[in-house]
Amino acid sequence: MALFITIEGGEGAGKSAVSAELAARMTASGVDLVTTFEPGGTALGRELRSLLFREQPATMEPISPWTETFLFLAGRAHHVETVIRPTLARGGVVLCDRFADSTIAYQAYGRQLDLERVREVNLLATDGLQPNLTLFLDVPALEGLRRAHPEEQDRIGMETVEFHNRVLEGYRRLALAEPDRIRTIDAGQPLAHVIEEAWALISPRLIRLGYQISA
Amino acid sequence: MALFITIEGGEGAGKSAVSAELAARMTASGVDLVTTFEPGGTALGRELRSLLFREQPATMEPISPWTETFLFLAGRAHHVETVIRPTLARGGVVLCDRFADSTIAYQAYGRQLDLERVREVNLLATDGLQPNLTLFLDVPALEGLRRAHPEEQDRIGMETVEFHNRVLEGYRRLALAEPDRIRTIDAGQPLAHVIEEAWALISPRLIRLGYQISA
Repeated sequence: MALFITIEGGEGAGKSAVSAELAARMTASGVDLVTTFEPGGTALGRELRSLLFREQPATMEPISPWTETFLFLAGRAHHVETVIRPTLARGGVVLCDRFADSTIAYQAYGRQLDLERVREVNLLATDGLQPNLTLFLDVPALEGLRRAHPEEQDRIGMETVEFHNRVLEGYRRLALAEPDRIRTIDAGQPLAHVIEEAWALISPRLIRLGYQISA
Repeated sequence: MALFITIEGGEGAGKSAVSAELAARMTASGVDLVTTFEPGGTALGRELRSLLFREQPATMEPISPWTETFLFLAGRAHHVETVIRPTLARGGVVLCDRFADSTIAYQAYGRQLDLERVREVNLLATDGLQPNLTLFLDVPALEGLRRAHPEEQDRIGMETVEFHNRVLEGYRRLALAEPDRIRTIDAGQPLAHVIEEAWALISPRLIRLGYQISA
């Protein structure tokens, strides 16, 4: 019964809007759904999010790439243990905005940490849990940054265009390497098209789980 | 000129009292000294410390061993980068209450996480930095727990005696494996004797660095 879906992408890819509409459709279909996000999704995660994203983390000391990575991993390990695994264990569906692929894209590709090391520590944090389906909303970095509301930009969103290009390159390589799990959606399309493509990937899986999908 | 000294041990081993006296002697000898501690030692570290040690971390959700480990590692990576390495780089002496050996003793031995994995992530957090000298204050777990002030006991201090025995076993194995770096001091002795033993290990190194040691 269980299904673990993640949504990934760079800044301004439309993850929040797509997640919200997918969640509404799943709930309308009677799905036992938990929508969640990283970093965050738990009380500890929200506190780590505030350490990671406030403008001056921890009174002006900039944080190093590995410090940043370990903060994300602490939140992920806790999130998997207290939210994601328990939901899947009772047969529920988890829709999660960002998960382990974000750490590969942002910290290994964006921050240029050693890819194999990042993979290894990610595995420790997820305890080997993989999404059944990952929707990668692909939009060119400049277009995404143009779309993202400047007033919502955080420490990572404010990185250089080169950084965001590396992040996208990371996502695209992940998608090439795992085509069965990671499905790429052109997020340069109008939002309604993006949502239909995403729903066309999700709804057959819900039907296989026994849900009756209207639409 | 630089010298990196860490002090390690279980609960109630007397680390704080020994550190304070060693720091006073070094300062009196004109040493360019930074005394620091983990978790803590930076603004970010103090915030992580409060997440780790308050009685109900993050509103009652218990945190898993890997979550705990990643929180310690985030604080360590930041501490090494912003405090320890810069002090050593300018030729200063760092005296640090707990460092990477604590993670081996508490998380690998105490929490029984995979030792090799913990070593690997520790290396990422320290970026390979090793203390020149580690003083392990060895006191039987029951004796240490009896000494530790109950009102100062935190989430880890309140673990079982079996847990604290595993922590001590971890320290003792580390000391056996690295006898040149880790020097064991019997902390069951009166404090004044412990301090003299510690000072006898530190002062020759300070003299080699060119400091004039009175006493």
